[in-house]
Amino acid sequence: MILRNATLPDGARHDVEIRDGRIAAFLPASHREPGVAVLPALVDGHIHLDKTLLGLPWVPNMAAGNRVADRIEAERKVRAARTVPESRTGANLVRQVVASGTLHMRSHVDIDNQLGLRNLHEILEVREQFRDLVTIQIVAFPQSGILRAPGTADLLDAAIAEGADLVGGLDPVGIDGDLDGHLDAIFAIAERRGVGIDIHLHDGGEGGIAQLTAIAERAASAGLQGKVAVSHAFALGSVPTDAAARTADRLARAGVAIMSHGPGGAAIPPLKLLREHGVEVFGGSDNIRDAWSPFGNGDMLERAMLIGYRANFRHDDELAFALDMVTGAAARVLGVTPYGIAIDAPADLVVVEADSLAEAVATRPRRKLVIKAGRVVARDGVLIS
Amino acid sequence: MILRNATLPDGARHDVEIRDGRIAAFLPASHREPGVAVLPALVDGHIHLDKTLLGLPWVPNMAAGNRVADRIEAERKVRAARTVPESRTGANLVRQVVASGTLHMRSHVDIDNQLGLRNLHEILEVREQFRDLVTIQIVAFPQSGILRAPGTADLLDAAIAEGADLVGGLDPVGIDGDLDGHLDAIFAIAERRGVGIDIHLHDGGEGGIAQLTAIAERAASAGLQGKVAVSHAFALGSVPTDAAARTADRLARAGVAIMSHGPGGAAIPPLKLLREHGVEVFGGSDNIRDAWSPFGNGDMLERAMLIGYRANFRHDDELAFALDMVTGAAARVLGVTPYGIAIDAPADLVVVEADSLAEAVATRPRRKLVIKAGRVVARDGVLIS
Repeated sequence: MILRNATLPDGARHDVEIRDGRIAAFLPASHREPGVAVLPALVDGHIHLDKTLLGLPWVPNMAAGNRVADRIEAERKVRAARTVPESRTGANLVRQVVASGTLHMRSHVDIDNQLGLRNLHEILEVREQFRDLVTIQIVAFPQSGILRAPGTADLLDAAIAEGADLVGGLDPVGIDGDLDGHLDAIFAIAERRGVGIDIHLHDGGEGGIAQLTAIAERAASAGLQGKVAVSHAFALGSVPTDAAARTADRLARAGVAIMSHGPGGAAIPPLKLLREHGVEVFGGSDNIRDAWSPFGNGDMLERAMLIGYRANFRHDDELAFALDMVTGAAARVLGVTPYGIAIDAPADLVVVEADSLAEAVATRPRRKLVIKAGRVVARDGVLIS
Repeated sequence: MILRNATLPDGARHDVEIRDGRIAAFLPASHREPGVAVLPALVDGHIHLDKTLLGLPWVPNMAAGNRVADRIEAERKVRAARTVPESRTGANLVRQVVASGTLHMRSHVDIDNQLGLRNLHEILEVREQFRDLVTIQIVAFPQSGILRAPGTADLLDAAIAEGADLVGGLDPVGIDGDLDGHLDAIFAIAERRGVGIDIHLHDGGEGGIAQLTAIAERAASAGLQGKVAVSHAFALGSVPTDAAARTADRLARAGVAIMSHGPGGAAIPPLKLLREHGVEVFGGSDNIRDAWSPFGNGDMLERAMLIGYRANFRHDDELAFALDMVTGAAARVLGVTPYGIAIDAPADLVVVEADSLAEAVATRPRRKLVIKAGRVVARDGVLIS
């Protein structure tokens, strides 16, 4: 296969030859219209495959309030009323996101003392079903807390034993009421099982900053640099710049990455400042048509646009930064390797009609082709079954 | 034509009979799959037809900073380099938005002492070109200020004489440095010419509130209730709730409407609070691929989603509120009448595959049909020429 008149992420224009599942050569561009932009496979650094209701009839959101605890409660009711297993809806979502160009994702999966490992088993099934198509990392996510839901720590450990790739966490103070207790449990599992960590942190202000600082300290002392991420970290966007900068330095030294989905109502972390201070920032979808949010669709070009829109990005290099959050940066955090567009790399590519990366982020054109290992797996936004 | 198995905005399910350009009857639903949602024509309460670069090769944003003044300056350079008239790019945008369901819009058009009435003439041409397809209201918009750009007041007045429908304004304090001077000029033209007003207000905090209060006072004393709008009004989202509520009461008593596009970085006004206090809130696209922002596409379902996302709307009735901002509420502000889905009303409709309004806002399905006066003008997102 040859992709003609293709603009690559570095701005170079080539015909791209694909052979035996790999990028074989960059040839002189044939200047045939319409030109296309060729992107590396999109990466979703934060998805919830077990939460989505995609494919089911519309379920109105019934959360009684806006607090995390309200949404946890609303979700319990929605879960109890489900008649279709999470493996089905999770598969619906995987198909949808692959068709929009996502070939690697990190999915948090809810673990608590009521669910047990049920959701994990459902998503392990999904991972197996799509193992030739897409990378699915699984985070064992204590959605109901750890200390306030006794037995959860053991379940998280068991989840890792059964195939979850990372141990998760959630608002050690705001939900679990015990910073050290929550982090003790998580880091113990991480060290015992030799896995990484990805903690949801919604808690804002100085309280959130204190938790970020504690996480950074533990990551450093446990030698887990490059293995720990904090998702959301709204606190970084809700304190003065100097406090954010000091925290950024701590995070960078400890090799802690920050995931942002470009939140709707909450404060967005100062992404450029974080990057300037050496913190890896990466993007993810977060909720997609589930009990937490009616919004979201898993389209990572749209997500890059939303992140850029919320971060007040306008310049081409800023849009490229937003795209990097859902490509190269996310791939680095997830440890996807090899990754990227280079001779001999796997031909995992997304082809869109656009003159440039910036235009692709702003206009989010239909995905002409999604290519996995040199094989077209989706055309014009439709999965080839 | 009969639209079968259609869910209407009120939730009722019917087959909708269209005859002689009007909605003729609501028949029993034929329960044929797939069901569709039928929406009234979408309304864009705030667009800039003369700014867009749609259809041109990508123009990287080169603003030197984030202030309004920086963006005005950057735009001057982009304008000077244009080789394609605004009537062409404006027409490109009209075609794009009609294909996504917009049949009524209020476009601000830049007027200043360098441009003269040039942009107005370009957009009057566009309005004439599409007069059988779409309603285009024109606001004579002093993008460079009034007092700081001498001669602009007379140009605004001349613009009304030549066909602009409303007189605009811009940050009386933040840009023009003279609250009373700026408002004197605008209200004088409005009263002399018998037209309404739509003022851009970016200025935040207490300063912005003071300007909103002044606008409300003048609207009331000039008897212009229902004829004055303020676009953006970020200040309402950047002061404590009690201050916002007091200002909301003043705006409501003065019949001043508020336009929000669900801003990316700026503070979103408290939309539900405004509505609860009797203020009409309506939606618009604002910038679409222009020198101010690379983002935007004029899709008002997407815009409703963005507004809802930024306003932290989750419940079905909140999504319906977001949709109302780009349908009924915007139609009321623009004075579009008749409007809406009722027997004998013009068949100006948008048909999407969705179970409900809420689902349509969240998922923004392709526009199966856009119907104007009973005639299909767009199918599957493509304009029928």
